[in-house]
Amino acid sequence: MTDRALKLIDICHEAGQLALKYFRDQDTLVIDHKGHQDFVSQADRNVELLTRELLAKTFPNDAIVGEEHDPTPGTSGFTWVIDPIDGTTNFINGIPAWTVVIAGVQDGATQVGVIHDPCNGETFVATKGQGAQLNGVPLVLDDPREMSQGTVGVGYSNRVDDQGIIRLVSAVVGEGSMFYRNASGALSLAYVAAGRLLGYTEEHMNAWDCLAGQLIVAEAGGMVEPQDADAMIRDGGRVVVGTPVVFDRLLEISKTAFDHST
Amino acid sequence: MTDRALKLIDICHEAGQLALKYFRDQDTLVIDHKGHQDFVSQADRNVELLTRELLAKTFPNDAIVGEEHDPTPGTSGFTWVIDPIDGTTNFINGIPAWTVVIAGVQDGATQVGVIHDPCNGETFVATKGQGAQLNGVPLVLDDPREMSQGTVGVGYSNRVDDQGIIRLVSAVVGEGSMFYRNASGALSLAYVAAGRLLGYTEEHMNAWDCLAGQLIVAEAGGMVEPQDADAMIRDGGRVVVGTPVVFDRLLEISKTAFDHST
Repeated sequence: MTDRALKLIDICHEAGQLALKYFRDQDTLVIDHKGHQDFVSQADRNVELLTRELLAKTFPNDAIVGEEHDPTPGTSGFTWVIDPIDGTTNFINGIPAWTVVIAGVQDGATQVGVIHDPCNGETFVATKGQGAQLNGVPLVLDDPREMSQGTVGVGYSNRVDDQGIIRLVSAVVGEGSMFYRNASGALSLAYVAAGRLLGYTEEHMNAWDCLAGQLIVAEAGGMVEPQDADAMIRDGGRVVVGTPVVFDRLLEISKTAFDHST
Repeated sequence: MTDRALKLIDICHEAGQLALKYFRDQDTLVIDHKGHQDFVSQADRNVELLTRELLAKTFPNDAIVGEEHDPTPGTSGFTWVIDPIDGTTNFINGIPAWTVVIAGVQDGATQVGVIHDPCNGETFVATKGQGAQLNGVPLVLDDPREMSQGTVGVGYSNRVDDQGIIRLVSAVVGEGSMFYRNASGALSLAYVAAGRLLGYTEEHMNAWDCLAGQLIVAEAGGMVEPQDADAMIRDGGRVVVGTPVVFDRLLEISKTAFDHST
């Protein structure tokens, strides 16, 4: 691990601790639904503020881009792309499947990425060209299974037309594969890197949800549909990753499912 | 909680501890895929043996029914229906979403049920007519949201034709709802009881996967499609549960989706 990656892990752990405190308190502190929404908004905002503060203190010359606030410009050419709580719906609903996600981008490529799952104490990290780890143990993808022998994660948001996900689920099931949707794209990407899912596909993800996971999968030895990180920061885009055995087929059925021209 | 429920919780905790030890050890103890399969089979078998042993010691006159072994007959008219590891695929793949499930049946109805999630330290329990609890805190379903405002869990196994789940996902998405599939039916039912999902539907579940969850949802104030517990033990069947607001609509789209006659 580089010094940059180690510092990033510390920041994710600290942000994760604050988020976990909110997550565990929400049932006891909040009575009604209106109050619940306000509480979650407050959690989201405060975890993002803490994350930005820690990044700014540790890497004062770098830019920061996130979902909730305007970008903070930098002078180093290095940009941190953050999602302090990925899987917000799970967080709101009390489902312990959400993550703190940070990716570091330079020269159009993700250089370092962390996905931290505070509920389960799992931290997935990768540095470009130096491999991926889960809680310090190297991740190496060598799963021989075909699609029909395993499970594929699928993602879906209200940013896209619903016909894409319906065609995708139909195609995945048609391959004899099981589908999985845990409503946290970053956690699902981390699960691919750890060999827990054969692949993951989603028609449109934002950069803060996917850049870290794409790097971690690639560094674990998986395949990732190439995307320019700067273009992803601007527009978001399609995300398809998988083990070397299933990737080509998963990309093919994803392209067909997400093609709305016909 | 009745004395029976308290003893059942203890048994689930003890079985869960053994299962969790296997779950955490599998990555370090097993090198290849063949060895991995053997290791998981051994975990499954030993957790089931421990569960049966604890039940037989605590309730010597009761019958026991489970997935892996022949039924143990009893003389009390009370039957324990057990699934020592529900969500086996998650367990095998290293995904922390699997449970220990035990239901107690008498006179064609489930009298007591426990779903225990060892990874997250959550124990859901209900006794017929006496309410449901999560870690000792009462569960009360009063979610005002319509289907379009929340997430519905969906289940699928290779015991059924794949057209049912495709039609179901299409219908759920068509309602403007999100779908969720975490590959543990019992955990999903527990999440409905805890207000984390608006409902859950699956074309065919076995008794050991669903009886406890159906009782916990009903006792939390949710709606459950009525099924005779003895018939479920014999044949399994359709499972549809939901909050009072969404239940009727979810049952309607489930019946249509799972109707293979057209």
